[in-house]
Amino acid sequence: MPLISLLTDFGSLDPFVGEMKAVILSICPETRIIDLTHQVKKFDVRLGSFLLAGAAPYFPSGTIHVGVVDPGVGSSRRAIVVQSRGAVYVGPDNGLLVPAAQREGILHVYELINRSFMRNEISATFHGRDVFAPSAAHLACGKMPRECGPEISDYVRPSYSQPTFDGKTITCEVFHIDGFGNIVTNV
Amino acid sequence: MPLISLLTDFGSLDPFVGEMKAVILSICPETRIIDLTHQVKKFDVRLGSFLLAGAAPYFPSGTIHVGVVDPGVGSSRRAIVVQSRGAVYVGPDNGLLVPAAQREGILHVYELINRSFMRNEISATFHGRDVFAPSAAHLACGKMPRECGPEISDYVRPSYSQPTFDGKTITCEVFHIDGFGNIVTNV
Amino acid sequence: MPLISLLTDFGSLDPFVGEMKAVILSICPETRIIDLTHQVKKFDVRLGSFLLAGAAPYFPSGTIHVGVVDPGVGSSRRAIVVQSRGAVYVGPDNGLLVPAAQREGILHVYELINRSFMRNEISATFHGRDVFAPSAAHLACGKMPRECGPEISDYVRPSYSQPTFDGKTITCEVFHIDGFGNIVTNV
Repeated sequence: MPLISLLTDFGSLDPFVGEMKAVILSICPETRIIDLTHQVKKFDVRLGSFLLAGAAPYFPSGTIHVGVVDPGVGSSRRAIVVQSRGAVYVGPDNGLLVPAAQREGILHVYELINRSFMRNEISATFHGRDVFAPSAAHLACGKMPRECGPEISDYVRPSYSQPTFDGKTITCEVFHIDGFGNIVTNV
Repeated sequence: MPLISLLTDFGSLDPFVGEMKAVILSICPETRIIDLTHQVKKFDVRLGSFLLAGAAPYFPSGTIHVGVVDPGVGSSRRAIVVQSRGAVYVGPDNGLLVPAAQREGILHVYELINRSFMRNEISATFHGRDVFAPSAAHLACGKMPRECGPEISDYVRPSYSQPTFDGKTITCEVFHIDGFGNIVTNV
Repeated sequence: MPLISLLTDFGSLDPFVGEMKAVILSICPETRIIDLTHQVKKFDVRLGSFLLAGAAPYFPSGTIHVGVVDPGVGSSRRAIVVQSRGAVYVGPDNGLLVPAAQREGILHVYELINRSFMRNEISATFHGRDVFAPSAAHLACGKMPRECGPEISDYVRPSYSQPTFDGKTITCEVFHIDGFGNIVTNV
């Protein structure tokens, strides 16, 4: 039985994460859920993608990672399922899932449109609970990523700047400063 | 095996929630526990009741919800177990549990007095760990709500104001502003 | 199957705790993990030891407590496993684990050097994930504390001041002010 990991920008006051877990365990009661973080800065897809890519390698093969940093929820942005060599990723098509999956090698990306994997009523603002969580639960309990919808190739690739070096100075991007003050860059 | 959910105002520094979980799993090792939130503003029963009522519908039937926002702990306020059509609620008799249970239809309310469901030593300030958590664990492992104590009908109903409309202006109460800035009212 | 508890100063933004859980469940998929707190003030070994000692008595006998408040990580400070009468403690040899274990009676202290209990690659700054978590998982799944390494007796004892009383005034140390404003001293 694969693990499910959760990474969101939902914070800890509202019971949003608890609702996602309730939905998951309603569908797949035996799965185990691990919180990666719910403190991603609101709508900071880049930070979320960085944290997910850093943590994913420590999970067992076959883990289903659900990422929800989703400023486009309720718009026409697509939902996707990414199958990599090591894991499965479920979330919005906004680049959040791609860096983690790329590290392992992306095998297939599917648009998530199969309504039987979702809750009957889908809130316009909470696809984490109504689309991503139930789909992850069905995948954990044996459904295949290809059952989620058609394979696509035009998924969103994040475009982060590359570091530059002019012979004397490196110009780079700071991805993250962790809780201990460590600064992580793209060098 | 029913799920147990936890909603408190204990925050995340002190290991109070961990102690509740330790007590639960000591009694009923197979049950699964979901955190709803532990960031309810201290003693804000109304906010807690609102968050619980919003989240409960996403849980499987038979879930045991433990709510501990309990300014009256150590006083003569009673402990109760509420059996609704969809779930069981365990906590203080201060209105916290009622809105969630009312949505589903309240079947029975019992005063929780059965000492065999509680820890031997009961702290005057921590009924979450010594009364509610162990009772929930016994219920999860097969005990019946009616074994908790006598049925009562004079439990505390929360009295929230009703919105008013004078033809031009709606006057209402703000229940909650969530982490994304959404304002929830009683309209 | 023993429980594993986790107490750290890692906070909730970074997915460090999630990585520890992923490592644990990779090795011992059936164990249950309870978070005590991850909000210990950074590097505050004394506060961590106080919170651990307060919470440990509520856990079932045989629980494996992992404590990571570890300012000396990457230095020559040792890793230890403490077997008490009631539990097993895994963490740095800096006094963090001792007050909790002393309450129950310390039976044996082992230096944790068995590389087969650790991850292959050990980060200089994250022994929580690479040393302590996997060792706890092996212990939860049946390995014995004495397999961790040689027994030692010169482990670090924390030296906290004693309260004094001059006939009129008690001079004491404040260990902790909890989220409800309760002040805990060493009197």
